[in-house]
Amino acid sequence: MDVGDCHQEYHQGMARWEPDSRSRLEQAAMALYAERGFDDTTVAQISERAGLTERTFFRYFPDKREVLFGGAGALQDLLVGAVADAPLSATPIDAVARALDAVGAVFADRREFARVRQAIIGGSAELQERELIKLATLSAAVAHAMRARGVGDPAAGLTGEVAVAVFKVAFEQWVVGTEPRDLSQLMRDGLDELKSVTADT
Amino acid sequence: MDVGDCHQEYHQGMARWEPDSRSRLEQAAMALYAERGFDDTTVAQISERAGLTERTFFRYFPDKREVLFGGAGALQDLLVGAVADAPLSATPIDAVARALDAVGAVFADRREFARVRQAIIGGSAELQERELIKLATLSAAVAHAMRARGVGDPAAGLTGEVAVAVFKVAFEQWVVGTEPRDLSQLMRDGLDELKSVTADT
Repeated sequence: MDVGDCHQEYHQGMARWEPDSRSRLEQAAMALYAERGFDDTTVAQISERAGLTERTFFRYFPDKREVLFGGAGALQDLLVGAVADAPLSATPIDAVARALDAVGAVFADRREFARVRQAIIGGSAELQERELIKLATLSAAVAHAMRARGVGDPAAGLTGEVAVAVFKVAFEQWVVGTEPRDLSQLMRDGLDELKSVTADT
Repeated sequence: MDVGDCHQEYHQGMARWEPDSRSRLEQAAMALYAERGFDDTTVAQISERAGLTERTFFRYFPDKREVLFGGAGALQDLLVGAVADAPLSATPIDAVARALDAVGAVFADRREFARVRQAIIGGSAELQERELIKLATLSAAVAHAMRARGVGDPAAGLTGEVAVAVFKVAFEQWVVGTEPRDLSQLMRDGLDELKSVTADT
């Protein structure tokens, strides 16, 4: 699930004339970024590859960078929703575990996409910066959701940072190499590792 | 006497005319950013305020943004050095605690500077992005230092994230409002809070 799905319904009326335009633009952009690099790809080329106009491109994305971050809002909604929906009796870290499980389930069948995307982002300083902004925004959103559950500061802020740290580290393990575990398992193991690292000895 | 010595003498001669140029440029930049905002300040204005030429500015800084990040390298050296110097018997989180203590000591008398800098950064998306890059770089450096101590993955990566999370959250508490604790104490309390948050119940 990404933001695309939400837009999809809204644009269903248009979909008869431009079936799946958003998804076609995303696929065209990813293919071009992987082929010739992010810096050397233009919106004109993406639109042409997708068989659409630049005007259509800009109806879905403000610029070529945001094509790679269309899912950030949905990811945030997922994390925040799972934290909010955790039982009142759940501790902050248990609420984080539930949120990460929800994220893992959504990513389960997107490993190849995630690999390609990560390689594209790794090749561009501008995209790496944007990825850091995405992660910082997620952390702040989780902290906000914790405060809404009555968690004080600095615990709420630290819990937000922890949630994103576990997601980030597990994601990096998941997309590179021949890691046999799925993202959900990697995040569960990461959270256990974090508990072990921070445990008083 | 070789070419190196000549250079030294050359700069020593100038030093009499331009005492502490770097520090003067930093102070001029901070004052202008606080007065008129980062976006509306030029290198020409900074140089003029410092009583120096633009050419001198560019001898110390690649651009006006980096004036605010001149300390990032020293901060990284401090963190990494303290992790490396921790006794072999120290756990990863104990090594982090030592590194944060070292950082706290250095910042002890820089609160007013930190407040002004944080306010400037808060007013510019470009500077906030650069700050995120700084923090991500610090996290990676701590993780690297952990691996050099024999800590495996993902523990090393998570420990780097935890170190920066505690620093970041404590720093935000320290620079805003009327927080009575110093940065060292806030980081110690933050680390305890993190241990408590991640403790299995």
